[in-house]
Amino acid sequence: MSKRPTTRVKVEVLDGDRVSRREDAVVTEEPLELRLQWPGRPAEPLVVTMRTPGSDFELAAGFCLAEGFATRTDAIATVAYCTDVKLTREQQFNTVTVTFDGPPDRLPPQRYGVTSAACGVCGQQSLDELAERNYPPVDDVRVPLDVVRQLPDLLRAAQPTFGRTGGLHAAGLFTASGEPVVVREDVGRHNAVDKVVGEHVLAGNVPLADRLLHVSGRVSFEIVQKAAMAGIPIVAAVGAPSSLAVEAGDRFGMTIAGFVRDGRFNVYSHPERIG
Amino acid sequence: MSKRPTTRVKVEVLDGDRVSRREDAVVTEEPLELRLQWPGRPAEPLVVTMRTPGSDFELAAGFCLAEGFATRTDAIATVAYCTDVKLTREQQFNTVTVTFDGPPDRLPPQRYGVTSAACGVCGQQSLDELAERNYPPVDDVRVPLDVVRQLPDLLRAAQPTFGRTGGLHAAGLFTASGEPVVVREDVGRHNAVDKVVGEHVLAGNVPLADRLLHVSGRVSFEIVQKAAMAGIPIVAAVGAPSSLAVEAGDRFGMTIAGFVRDGRFNVYSHPERIG
Repeated sequence: MSKRPTTRVKVEVLDGDRVSRREDAVVTEEPLELRLQWPGRPAEPLVVTMRTPGSDFELAAGFCLAEGFATRTDAIATVAYCTDVKLTREQQFNTVTVTFDGPPDRLPPQRYGVTSAACGVCGQQSLDELAERNYPPVDDVRVPLDVVRQLPDLLRAAQPTFGRTGGLHAAGLFTASGEPVVVREDVGRHNAVDKVVGEHVLAGNVPLADRLLHVSGRVSFEIVQKAAMAGIPIVAAVGAPSSLAVEAGDRFGMTIAGFVRDGRFNVYSHPERIG
Repeated sequence: MSKRPTTRVKVEVLDGDRVSRREDAVVTEEPLELRLQWPGRPAEPLVVTMRTPGSDFELAAGFCLAEGFATRTDAIATVAYCTDVKLTREQQFNTVTVTFDGPPDRLPPQRYGVTSAACGVCGQQSLDELAERNYPPVDDVRVPLDVVRQLPDLLRAAQPTFGRTGGLHAAGLFTASGEPVVVREDVGRHNAVDKVVGEHVLAGNVPLADRLLHVSGRVSFEIVQKAAMAGIPIVAAVGAPSSLAVEAGDRFGMTIAGFVRDGRFNVYSHPERIG
């Protein structure tokens, strides 16, 4: 168990007929329990996510924005680790409590991820629910083609850990001229995005109307949801988008680019912001 | 919205100074709500996962094994889509109810993913909980080096959709001599593993003591947990393992191999099964 982003392990390398033994670094994965409380309600556990330790408060704040609990910049009063003295130090640093200054903008669901008592969910419903979450309007910022092309190199240059483990997803927030604003890595792609956005939530700097989000992997609906709630107009990914990610981009006026690699890329929705 | 594994979308391709427009296929992502019921308890929603439609019953059955709800092969009585006539066809096919023949082997947690009321979680606790889930002992099957090396090619050869979208994770179950037994793809890596294992749960063919699991991406704790609950002794991945995946492999006597590519690979735990 480790609180550092990487952990040393022993590894046996099998290459052709040669077997060698050495130490290697793997990405650290540890559970983080997120608790919410507000005046009149004690802290209650909401969800456990497996994450790479580091930027835990940002992760918590970004998650609360994405899920619609804290859409006003001043909604979060404090974010803190659990300080129960009966816990090991490790356990203390794996529990984060977010305290709101009043009831959250949206009440947490009874069962996390389960949205209603009615039978039946569908992609359209996921989009409808997101539409009700008080997301900010997106900006009409324009980004030069060349900036989008260079994003993977810019992201990689700002990643401290990936080269050592190969096991991390990275997310970066960039200006329209390609300056990196904040880059974070995590074993989970959604966590990396929460950390990037959460830093701005804690600083009171949302919506991020003139920024673009770049991710090292694929774009699922969840990633687009997080960008939408942060008011980020452009999501560009090294990997492929999913159908629901494209539909969400269409519906919420966001530009979704994918397969940004080897100097080319595809735009799946609202291409008018690029060029 | 689509029930097929891929969805056609319009895409603008930006390559150098050329801009072209065409139709492209992206992987379909749709929510699936999983409900559990048993004698004396009505169907209650447990969790919603974003998945690629197809093999939904297998996904549900694999999930129930991995989470310790159905560890006996005959624990699951039926798996069915919701047939509420008030629903659209789409919604009906996004809700799956698993019915047990009695109380499940482990009761679902009050809040999914949140494991206890006590403050504090840690990786050690995640391992301890998994150890309590009645997982089968792992076998001492041996796998030739060359079989492990060829797994990525064997997996790719059995993947129908990846080439068209680039957006899918794949998981495959192989014999110790490299024969593919079942290969499934999904927008979520954990779903692909549940589908592969779930097919055997429904057929009453678990534990999978002489099989190996190969995944196209990285190995998180969750993937090792699913393999452990299915009794699969070897997990080999194209990508990197996390720290907790390696610890789980160590503790549960499983072989974890990573970076299986370009004719070489690393073994992080129990290398004695390979060679």
